[in-house]
Amino acid sequence: MPGSVFAFLNGFGQQGWADMSIMNIEVLAGGKRYRFQSEAGTSLKDCLLKAGILEGAECGGRGICGKCAVKVRSGTLAPVEGDESFLMTRGDGKVLACQSLIREDVVIEISAGRDDVRRKVRLPNLQKEKKYSDSLIEKKFIQLSKPSLRDQASDLERILAQVGKNKKVAFSLLGGLPEIVRKADFEVTAVLVEDELIAVEPGDTHALRYGFILDIGTTTIAVYLVDLLSGEVLDADGTANPQRVFGADVLSRITAAAGRENLEKMQAVTIKGISETMRGLLRSLSIDENHVYSVVAVGNTTMSHLFLGVDPKNLSVAPFIPCYRPRTVVKGGRLGLPMHPEGTVHVLANISGYVGSDTLGVAMATKLWEQKGYSLAVDIGTNGEIILGYKGWLLACSAAAGPAFEGAHIQNGMRAGDGAIESVLLENGTVRLGVIGDMPPQGICGSGLIDAVAELLRCGLLGVSGRLAGEKSPALSQPLGGRLRTVGGMREFVLAFAGEQGNERDIVITQKDIRELQLAKAAIAAGIAVLLKEVKIEASQIDRIYLAGAFGNYLDREKAVALGMFPGISVDKIIPIGNAAAEGAGLCLLSLGERKMADRIASFVKPVELSTHVEFNDLFVREIGFPPLGGKGAS
Amino acid sequence: MPGSVFAFLNGFGQQGWADMSIMNIEVLAGGKRYRFQSEAGTSLKDCLLKAGILEGAECGGRGICGKCAVKVRSGTLAPVEGDESFLMTRGDGKVLACQSLIREDVVIEISAGRDDVRRKVRLPNLQKEKKYSDSLIEKKFIQLSKPSLRDQASDLERILAQVGKNKKVAFSLLGGLPEIVRKADFEVTAVLVEDELIAVEPGDTHALRYGFILDIGTTTIAVYLVDLLSGEVLDADGTANPQRVFGADVLSRITAAAGRENLEKMQAVTIKGISETMRGLLRSLSIDENHVYSVVAVGNTTMSHLFLGVDPKNLSVAPFIPCYRPRTVVKGGRLGLPMHPEGTVHVLANISGYVGSDTLGVAMATKLWEQKGYSLAVDIGTNGEIILGYKGWLLACSAAAGPAFEGAHIQNGMRAGDGAIESVLLENGTVRLGVIGDMPPQGICGSGLIDAVAELLRCGLLGVSGRLAGEKSPALSQPLGGRLRTVGGMREFVLAFAGEQGNERDIVITQKDIRELQLAKAAIAAGIAVLLKEVKIEASQIDRIYLAGAFGNYLDREKAVALGMFPGISVDKIIPIGNAAAEGAGLCLLSLGERKMADRIASFVKPVELSTHVEFNDLFVREIGFPPLGGKGAS
Repeated sequence: MPGSVFAFLNGFGQQGWADMSIMNIEVLAGGKRYRFQSEAGTSLKDCLLKAGILEGAECGGRGICGKCAVKVRSGTLAPVEGDESFLMTRGDGKVLACQSLIREDVVIEISAGRDDVRRKVRLPNLQKEKKYSDSLIEKKFIQLSKPSLRDQASDLERILAQVGKNKKVAFSLLGGLPEIVRKADFEVTAVLVEDELIAVEPGDTHALRYGFILDIGTTTIAVYLVDLLSGEVLDADGTANPQRVFGADVLSRITAAAGRENLEKMQAVTIKGISETMRGLLRSLSIDENHVYSVVAVGNTTMSHLFLGVDPKNLSVAPFIPCYRPRTVVKGGRLGLPMHPEGTVHVLANISGYVGSDTLGVAMATKLWEQKGYSLAVDIGTNGEIILGYKGWLLACSAAAGPAFEGAHIQNGMRAGDGAIESVLLENGTVRLGVIGDMPPQGICGSGLIDAVAELLRCGLLGVSGRLAGEKSPALSQPLGGRLRTVGGMREFVLAFAGEQGNERDIVITQKDIRELQLAKAAIAAGIAVLLKEVKIEASQIDRIYLAGAFGNYLDREKAVALGMFPGISVDKIIPIGNAAAEGAGLCLLSLGERKMADRIASFVKPVELSTHVEFNDLFVREIGFPPLGGKGAS
Repeated sequence: MPGSVFAFLNGFGQQGWADMSIMNIEVLAGGKRYRFQSEAGTSLKDCLLKAGILEGAECGGRGICGKCAVKVRSGTLAPVEGDESFLMTRGDGKVLACQSLIREDVVIEISAGRDDVRRKVRLPNLQKEKKYSDSLIEKKFIQLSKPSLRDQASDLERILAQVGKNKKVAFSLLGGLPEIVRKADFEVTAVLVEDELIAVEPGDTHALRYGFILDIGTTTIAVYLVDLLSGEVLDADGTANPQRVFGADVLSRITAAAGRENLEKMQAVTIKGISETMRGLLRSLSIDENHVYSVVAVGNTTMSHLFLGVDPKNLSVAPFIPCYRPRTVVKGGRLGLPMHPEGTVHVLANISGYVGSDTLGVAMATKLWEQKGYSLAVDIGTNGEIILGYKGWLLACSAAAGPAFEGAHIQNGMRAGDGAIESVLLENGTVRLGVIGDMPPQGICGSGLIDAVAELLRCGLLGVSGRLAGEKSPALSQPLGGRLRTVGGMREFVLAFAGEQGNERDIVITQKDIRELQLAKAAIAAGIAVLLKEVKIEASQIDRIYLAGAFGNYLDREKAVALGMFPGISVDKIIPIGNAAAEGAGLCLLSLGERKMADRIASFVKPVELSTHVEFNDLFVREIGFPPLGGKGAS
């Protein structure tokens, strides 16, 4: 009741609008349906901004840029200026949200929104195997006995009587407890996280319980929002790791984090980037951050250290000693993440200085130790983490691939977001590009780069040594040859000339880009070779290889083989599994049993240190070139 | 080494002093010996301020006020102005610290310092019964194995290997761990608080472990610093409760704390006052606040709520429901107290809305339930807490006495600090005053007030109804009669005319002061009477009565009987026990067993609600007057 009176006064004062009733707004966007309510007389643009469906207009809401155009499916909107015709000045049957006011229930459709950005992260299926019931997040709706002179028990005791007398209690919940209990007329929901009473919420909120998976990569951070009741991944988003301004690889990050102040700065930018991504997801689904009770984070050992504000400097010098390895638990409020401050953040265990909790996540998702024969799991990122499982044993290493697979340090590289070329096909003398978001290309992401290089190889424009065809090469006589040129002394292949696909500038693959990719794939191939040597087997003895990657740019297994990333292993043994690190973290988010299993596995995996390995450099150099016959000769 | 270079440059730049060596300063003050070091050329006043031995000069260090006068026992000081004679201008053989510079090792003596203020709090003896070994504060000096490529265990694991692999770890210790471990060459001390590894300190610090007892009274807060290794109370200090500006009693505090913002303000001033007192004690013994690992706090239920920032509003209206009763544990960092942020603060359990954890402390110190016959314990403060133990049962109530016993709301009242009249003797027509700190009186504290009123009664200048002798009373003919006068329509007795004892103004006891004291003592007497009625016994059946009080103004048992505070109970059954609430809290600081016992006792004591008790008001009115024959007729 006080709410509606306030809304009336507020609305009346601001808008002078006569009808103060609340309207239902339904929005279809990016395959999702959003429902919310708004007062009549409110700007549709403001509603959409508040709900996080629109991200702001370039013209500031002056009806110019057209970014807020929507299609009205049912109901009508009122014009801001009083002139109904102004709403319909567009030829495409759409109206501008910034020029429209809510006047009745409406259903509208938005074709391009922020949602499209999100397709770059695929959602792992956390319940394909089984449904977990041991997440240790409990919510219980309880009706409390009311106090009297004969029953002077405290508010807290009334709650504990129903959830367990000896539960640990987070002191912070006491502050507002008397008011919550009385405003809700003694009907509340108790929130227990890992056996501690952390919150008391008014009314029945038992179904509202959420968690996040954070996959903190050196180049990119992936964030997944999980419904802890159903186990479903509701949505996901990615962001560039804000630490990138301090350098592309873990060594430069460690250098930049020297000294307490720099370390704190590094942690702060990381937490900020993650928090903003988390908030965006929460906003888009209208979820209150206080209903987020649990987070599981994974990353390489340096990323985990920096996320927790822990000095990583000894990771950069032999003998590469981490500050901590075991799983670390910290309350959300200590890290400042948008979640219940008494909720828990679990950073899974590191395996060694260079094999992090992300690798543990891959192990948990693939359960390699349960499989027959020899299995490999390879997680492609700035570091390529490789696990070999055989006869109940697990070995792991981490190969420094660099950021090429994520589209970074590439001349026209970009993250796998809107406008990124994600696939390339060279046929009949033309270039066919697949672009994320159905728009003119703006750059190329990791999978686009891999596609392009594999196609250049196939067409003979690129030699097995990794050199683009020279100015006198006979290969230049084919129709695509005209796209090869030399700029500033370096050869490059033009994927799209300016204007060719609506793009503003030329988009090219340079000789240097190809070299970056060669280093990356050679690091992976050499890492695999080292593990095979450790257990004294040949590549042909591998029974299966799981191919994991954090982002939309999942490697096409044919292309990976064509580039020689997995020498000696045939294509049919490669099983793409999406973001396994996040999936494994997700299992640990949903289940105490999985968490405990992960703790055991972490101390059980044998890490193999590549940087000091006697054969690694030889193997690396051997794998720098591309395989003849697109890698098919070796299977 | 870097320290001394810095000191050299710094000293040279600022002072132009040639000799930069470090001198030893020894200070004798208030029966204590302080030792510290300082650079030659530093002002002695600055040294003493920094060490917390001086509290600042009134003249700002211009050599005028004389507050910083010290006696040099050995060594010599250099004059600030270059003129040696300036140091010696005082006739008492003392020099002014503000006019002196350190030039060699010296021993100095300070006769009046801040230390004198502290005698108002007596130190409880926590180990009179037994020595506890279950404080759950452990410190272990460990020598760690050094890492190599063959032993890549993390820093944390090296520590856990020696203190227990499955210990909980406070994540905050990870931040600086690598640096601490290496700077200390892998020799560190692990700190475990309640089975959680909360800190790793360089070198061997196993003996440095401290705790605090906080006794949070409505009017005054007492703070005790405890050595957790020996169990000794090292020092104590008191401060006026900073909430007093919001009102004298708990009801006005509850009113002032309405609304989140006011509640937070109220908590903040409380924490600030307590923190400053804690810091003063730490500074005077040169103890690092990071070596304080545990705090136990007691107070009445409203004080406990406000200390924790918990809304106390339902305590002010029937049925007087506290937000919480059970013991609450919170990390020091959450409250912002000067202690290790991961150390624990235990706020002992409340018994009911008006019987708080301070009463539980008294119960723990007296162990009434173990005693034969009927025992009473009475804790005198703004509220008089009364416990009755008989045949294994415990009853408790809290009587609102008001702040008179603590010298507040009294015309010339003051806390029991320097300058407070703490005892009064009227004999041979003269007034003999005992003043704290051997200085001219500035006001009167609670024990002085009680003494004065008992003496006025004895001399016949005060009637049993509580009226001071009127202007026509024959009592005025005695020599002291000249000290009775009427000012602004109110009668008052002059304890000291201005100048009589070096005091600047008249110090008086007014009729209103006496009424305040009558209300206070009647509340206690009526509270005792209610408990006796609850168990259906007479006062004469009481076997012993423990008389507790937080401050130096411990009631003189003869005087308490003279005022009729314990009607029907003879003087020889009264056992003064000092600050029992703090002592009980101290037992819980030293021992997990005592803490658990206190939890059990809290739920076992039967609280008796006085404000709604049918007979309390009648009994209160009956006890307003003073007993004839100084109370001796009733024993």
